[in-house]
Amino acid sequence: MDLIEDRMGNQWGWWGDPEVVATAGVVTGSHLDSVPDGGAFDGPLGVVSALLAIDQLRSDGFTPRRPIAIVNFVDEEGARFGISCLGSRVITGALSPDKARDLRDAEGVTLAEAMRGVGRQPEHLGPDPESLGRIGSFIELHIEQGRALIDLGQAVGVGNRLWAHGRWRIEIPGEANHAGTTRLSDRRDAMIGCARAVLAARVAAETHGSLATVGKISIQPGGVNAIARSATAWLDARASGETALRSTVAQIEEEVASLDAVVTEESWTPQTAFDDALVNRLANLLDGAPVMSSGAGHDAGILANAGVPAAMIFVRNPTGVSHSPAEWADPEDCYAGAAALATVLAEFAGAAQ
Amino acid sequence: MDLIEDRMGNQWGWWGDPEVVATAGVVTGSHLDSVPDGGAFDGPLGVVSALLAIDQLRSDGFTPRRPIAIVNFVDEEGARFGISCLGSRVITGALSPDKARDLRDAEGVTLAEAMRGVGRQPEHLGPDPESLGRIGSFIELHIEQGRALIDLGQAVGVGNRLWAHGRWRIEIPGEANHAGTTRLSDRRDAMIGCARAVLAARVAAETHGSLATVGKISIQPGGVNAIARSATAWLDARASGETALRSTVAQIEEEVASLDAVVTEESWTPQTAFDDALVNRLANLLDGAPVMSSGAGHDAGILANAGVPAAMIFVRNPTGVSHSPAEWADPEDCYAGAAALATVLAEFAGAAQ
Repeated sequence: MDLIEDRMGNQWGWWGDPEVVATAGVVTGSHLDSVPDGGAFDGPLGVVSALLAIDQLRSDGFTPRRPIAIVNFVDEEGARFGISCLGSRVITGALSPDKARDLRDAEGVTLAEAMRGVGRQPEHLGPDPESLGRIGSFIELHIEQGRALIDLGQAVGVGNRLWAHGRWRIEIPGEANHAGTTRLSDRRDAMIGCARAVLAARVAAETHGSLATVGKISIQPGGVNAIARSATAWLDARASGETALRSTVAQIEEEVASLDAVVTEESWTPQTAFDDALVNRLANLLDGAPVMSSGAGHDAGILANAGVPAAMIFVRNPTGVSHSPAEWADPEDCYAGAAALATVLAEFAGAAQ
Repeated sequence: MDLIEDRMGNQWGWWGDPEVVATAGVVTGSHLDSVPDGGAFDGPLGVVSALLAIDQLRSDGFTPRRPIAIVNFVDEEGARFGISCLGSRVITGALSPDKARDLRDAEGVTLAEAMRGVGRQPEHLGPDPESLGRIGSFIELHIEQGRALIDLGQAVGVGNRLWAHGRWRIEIPGEANHAGTTRLSDRRDAMIGCARAVLAARVAAETHGSLATVGKISIQPGGVNAIARSATAWLDARASGETALRSTVAQIEEEVASLDAVVTEESWTPQTAFDDALVNRLANLLDGAPVMSSGAGHDAGILANAGVPAAMIFVRNPTGVSHSPAEWADPEDCYAGAAALATVLAEFAGAAQ
């Protein structure tokens, strides 16, 4: 395949020249980066399965009418610079080049400096209509995150949308006091409020069929014999619909209102619907493959928001574990995913005369 | 008064020479150090009230038969080296000189190094029967911690014992996973377990009339979108009796057992009873002063455990707030405390012929 590296550093391997053929291509792929202490499948499975699918098509003697590409988007997890889907955000303009260049890693190194350090030219960052224009449709294969396909008895599913999600900061006030002498009735213990917020998030998620998680908290002063004078809990909440998500957060806010807690929205990402026609075509091609949504963010979502017809294929994750070394997909399911991708690419690209 | 600094650096101001008079003295005092971001009364009130009481006795023309001393015990709060009541622990032998010298502050400086840095000789640390032998009885005046005297309408109370207390480490296991994709039913979220432990501690304290506080927790990995794979909560628990304290902790252990939590006892201090005769004599002298126990540790408790007849006088804290800049005692209550102390010293020392 012919390798093109775009100005952001995303790698595109083309089978057939999109400039010569003068028709937008069928693009698949995902990312090769991971979270710290993550698993082996989140990202790489989409790139490796694409290579397997191309091998399959070639060994079958297939020659595509429309060009086919495999893309490796850079820095999807945002592990170093804190912004997920950096590669797709920059080329679609979802993130401005100035903001991208100024991102800093934990050591204070900017993205611009890091790019220069490996011989890239950050001054050329920005929207890339040329690369995007070559994509007629984008299908990202990804390991399932969470556990749905195992219960459906299916190796492969079709992704139709990404959940709305956001982050909220919950600040709970308390009153500093001596843990050894302050009567229970005289206490205003921010740790107790924090515990209630954590449990309220779980109850709200159960109520609204959403997800709500507190994974990070900060307690002041944090001494063993000190009643907490303040606590901060960070809430990650997601739902398949924005109404359910807003209702989830509203219920948590109501629960913590009696604690005089202040809830601040730190980020909000609306739900992303993939291309209906594309989703239906995938579901028809992969007969029996269930249509499913995902609570995680993906490059396919960034492209979809930029107007690129996109959809996803998920490969069964029997335990559902994600972002952990225990993440796993059975080899036969991985092969089934690659075979499904080969079927889709062949159908979408069409055989040359 | 004649100042004697003992080998540990505790300061003793004597009115009358205990060597010449050949009878053990009446000693009062407390400490001048504080916790970080603490209040103005915890410690200094006992030293300042003692000075006021001596002034009062002198202006009344009183001359003691037995010698009287005011002591300032060093490092009562343990803010720098982590061990409370360091000054009284070392001279009573409750802490061995080797362990004391090897204590390290947050910067890694040992107590021995810190003492040498201010011209003291750490090689002379150790039990000090000479200083202890001069104490016929020890009465420590201290601001009340917590709130009891306000409801009793009394400015001053007599302390008869210190509660049993201890620290426990509660480790709650979880399973690392993606907060955005893991179904609620598939989660093993250590943060939820930690919140339950925090609330269980409160319920157990309510059940057994004790105090139980979680003031410090640690969450791993602590990412906003990461389900916690482990949590550690530190429990501070105290009760007026050891049975109530053991029952409190047992109830918390039972609550967290279903979470596969591991509970480890980090420290245990049995209750300290002050000298009955001394307590009764104080209560009789200060008619109407209620007898009360304290959940906090005090130098008086260390001395009592070393066989010194000891008791305490508490001065009303109208809000109960302790270890905070908001800690407060009304001036008239402070004067009442000093007057009570003057009465006690005069009675115990007796007037010279």
